[in-house]
Amino acid sequence: MGNTVALLTDFGYGDSFVGVMKGVIASLDNSLNVIDISHDILPQDIGQGAFVLDTSYSYFPKGTVFCCVVDPGVGSDRKAICIKTKNYYFVGPDNGLMYAAAENDGIVKIIELNEEKYFLDKVSLTFHGRDIFAPISAHIAAGLDVELLGPETQRLVEFRFPVPKEEDGELRLKMLHVDSFGNIVLNIQETEFKNFCADIEFELTISNIVVNKLCRHYTEVEEGELFVIIGSNGYLEISARNADAADILNVELGDIAILREKNAQREE
Amino acid sequence: MGNTVALLTDFGYGDSFVGVMKGVIASLDNSLNVIDISHDILPQDIGQGAFVLDTSYSYFPKGTVFCCVVDPGVGSDRKAICIKTKNYYFVGPDNGLMYAAAENDGIVKIIELNEEKYFLDKVSLTFHGRDIFAPISAHIAAGLDVELLGPETQRLVEFRFPVPKEEDGELRLKMLHVDSFGNIVLNIQETEFKNFCADIEFELTISNIVVNKLCRHYTEVEEGELFVIIGSNGYLEISARNADAADILNVELGDIAILREKNAQREE
Amino acid sequence: MGNTVALLTDFGYGDSFVGVMKGVIASLDNSLNVIDISHDILPQDIGQGAFVLDTSYSYFPKGTVFCCVVDPGVGSDRKAICIKTKNYYFVGPDNGLMYAAAENDGIVKIIELNEEKYFLDKVSLTFHGRDIFAPISAHIAAGLDVELLGPETQRLVEFRFPVPKEEDGELRLKMLHVDSFGNIVLNIQETEFKNFCADIEFELTISNIVVNKLCRHYTEVEEGELFVIIGSNGYLEISARNADAADILNVELGDIAILREKNAQREE
Repeated sequence: MGNTVALLTDFGYGDSFVGVMKGVIASLDNSLNVIDISHDILPQDIGQGAFVLDTSYSYFPKGTVFCCVVDPGVGSDRKAICIKTKNYYFVGPDNGLMYAAAENDGIVKIIELNEEKYFLDKVSLTFHGRDIFAPISAHIAAGLDVELLGPETQRLVEFRFPVPKEEDGELRLKMLHVDSFGNIVLNIQETEFKNFCADIEFELTISNIVVNKLCRHYTEVEEGELFVIIGSNGYLEISARNADAADILNVELGDIAILREKNAQREE
Repeated sequence: MGNTVALLTDFGYGDSFVGVMKGVIASLDNSLNVIDISHDILPQDIGQGAFVLDTSYSYFPKGTVFCCVVDPGVGSDRKAICIKTKNYYFVGPDNGLMYAAAENDGIVKIIELNEEKYFLDKVSLTFHGRDIFAPISAHIAAGLDVELLGPETQRLVEFRFPVPKEEDGELRLKMLHVDSFGNIVLNIQETEFKNFCADIEFELTISNIVVNKLCRHYTEVEEGELFVIIGSNGYLEISARNADAADILNVELGDIAILREKNAQREE
Repeated sequence: MGNTVALLTDFGYGDSFVGVMKGVIASLDNSLNVIDISHDILPQDIGQGAFVLDTSYSYFPKGTVFCCVVDPGVGSDRKAICIKTKNYYFVGPDNGLMYAAAENDGIVKIIELNEEKYFLDKVSLTFHGRDIFAPISAHIAAGLDVELLGPETQRLVEFRFPVPKEEDGELRLKMLHVDSFGNIVLNIQETEFKNFCADIEFELTISNIVVNKLCRHYTEVEEGELFVIIGSNGYLEISARNADAADILNVELGDIAILREKNAQREE
């Protein structure tokens, strides 16, 4: 097979949106290997899309073209771009969605996509995934020089994940993602967590519930018991054995978790 | 890769139905490029399946074999057919599902599938997707002459989408589809809508709510605001910015929308 | 294309877990044909996973590598194994998930996967699907001799589907699966059912409702009417025409159905 095109969208699986994008790609080059990263990003949630892309891209073959469509500004004057990085190509709207992944891999060049001859003949105002991003991705994966796709640009809409906030010796953490098992991914990575907890016992408070057990795998606790674990992407996660931690804690994206030393004086 | 087989079913993703069909196809020809259009057609909803197929097929490579299974009559005396059209092949039950797409592409020949040697050895009475339609589709995509699959027939179960009904200067519209974002697709296309609204301001009434703004893209209105737009398939859609219009309006497939001149005298 | 890798997991479609596994596979061999069996196995439900695998595997090309991850014990001391059978390879945790399928195809050899050079460089404690099972499956599909993956072992965690229990001439049946249409799959196959019902009329009681009609296909009854049918996998299923039998009966996995002779004396 030819190169890989990896798709990330908020289109869901209930419509033909994704299938049609694959039809467009196959029409241009039937040898490409098209892989779905996910299509269940929450509608228009650029932050969640950015997180999923950033924690996924490095597992794909070098040269993969990531075709990314979480695009609330479709049809407006937001730019369509291709970011060439050290190992990959990222194609999608210039709204921050691809920023973290591209920066982490190392941005080499940014192209503004305005050569309409590489779009579908008729471009709608609401479905650039089909009309622009799918055909552009197929052309790049098939070997087209990205410089032919439009002028180089230096500017990019930036998007950064929230970082932990320290206050009176406590860390205020935010949720980056809740996965399909109900594991809650927090915005602190292994090194920073271990630095904080090096010589102390910790308490993590969320939804008025305190979690203070750090496990290495799911079988160390009882069924349904809450604990924290360094997840497979290197972030701290709140989990429950064979149960849905997000359900148990009744949390929503945006909720805050407080990490502090056990038995520390709390200001209420 | 070889030719494309595109799958459209109401099997959902929770079972192995679709995976098994792909296993059958790969067993016959492992070089074929199998693409999912959608598997989340509402169970046994031939009309929704016909809409999704009709708005998708033309984006696929010429020669694609569409393997379509929304089949409430499986195991009864409904026929299994292959429709050869100008550019494609449509394989599935003869229940109207493939009628609109096939007719729009131009029907060349209809074959009744009764050569059992191209089926799986053991044919169940409830899963012809696996036992008949998948292997037949693979054989055709691999190059088998469709005339070997059974006798030619002239008759086809017809299915037409509802058309707008005009009454006292108003148009009564029906919903064809609600997509995964909650956009409501109505049974009127761009040209007919623009003819109706050429010199007037319009009102579209649905669920006792009036929508009278036509936008070109989603960012022209406030968050959550309702508007109409010509969707990516050329049909009029009711949308809400970064929100779910179908949820806001609490509509169900089958509900009616009334399009009339603004401030026209209404007969209540 | 190269060999087939078939994936079965409980990862759902809302995350990038499955996409990342495909990225890992493509990174090792971009020519492999990767097919999804299902990713909607109920979280950690080994029994449902075993059922779906056992009823699916034989439809895949000979030589297919089944990469199976329903793995509540990930990171603990449960073994990672490859079972070579007469026609296939099964790669996953040693927890019974692959037992029925492997035994039915005929076990040839069991390898304990401990050659870390075939894993990803960094192995997490919570995502062996990505770090161990995906790369091992790709290596096998690409032609690596399974004996290089670790030592042979004779022991395997066994898992058997429940069998009907006879008591006072009645059969107590269990539900193996509810499919996406709401069809309820019971743990009795065609031959055993027909033996039981050979010369009698039967009654099947579930949720205090009696079903006593055996149909050959769905169109023999009225809309919404309950009946039993030999399903496409050879098991007895409770169905309702164009309706969801599991919803109508309000059953849950674990519920019991009683099969008896019609009008037989019942002990209450």
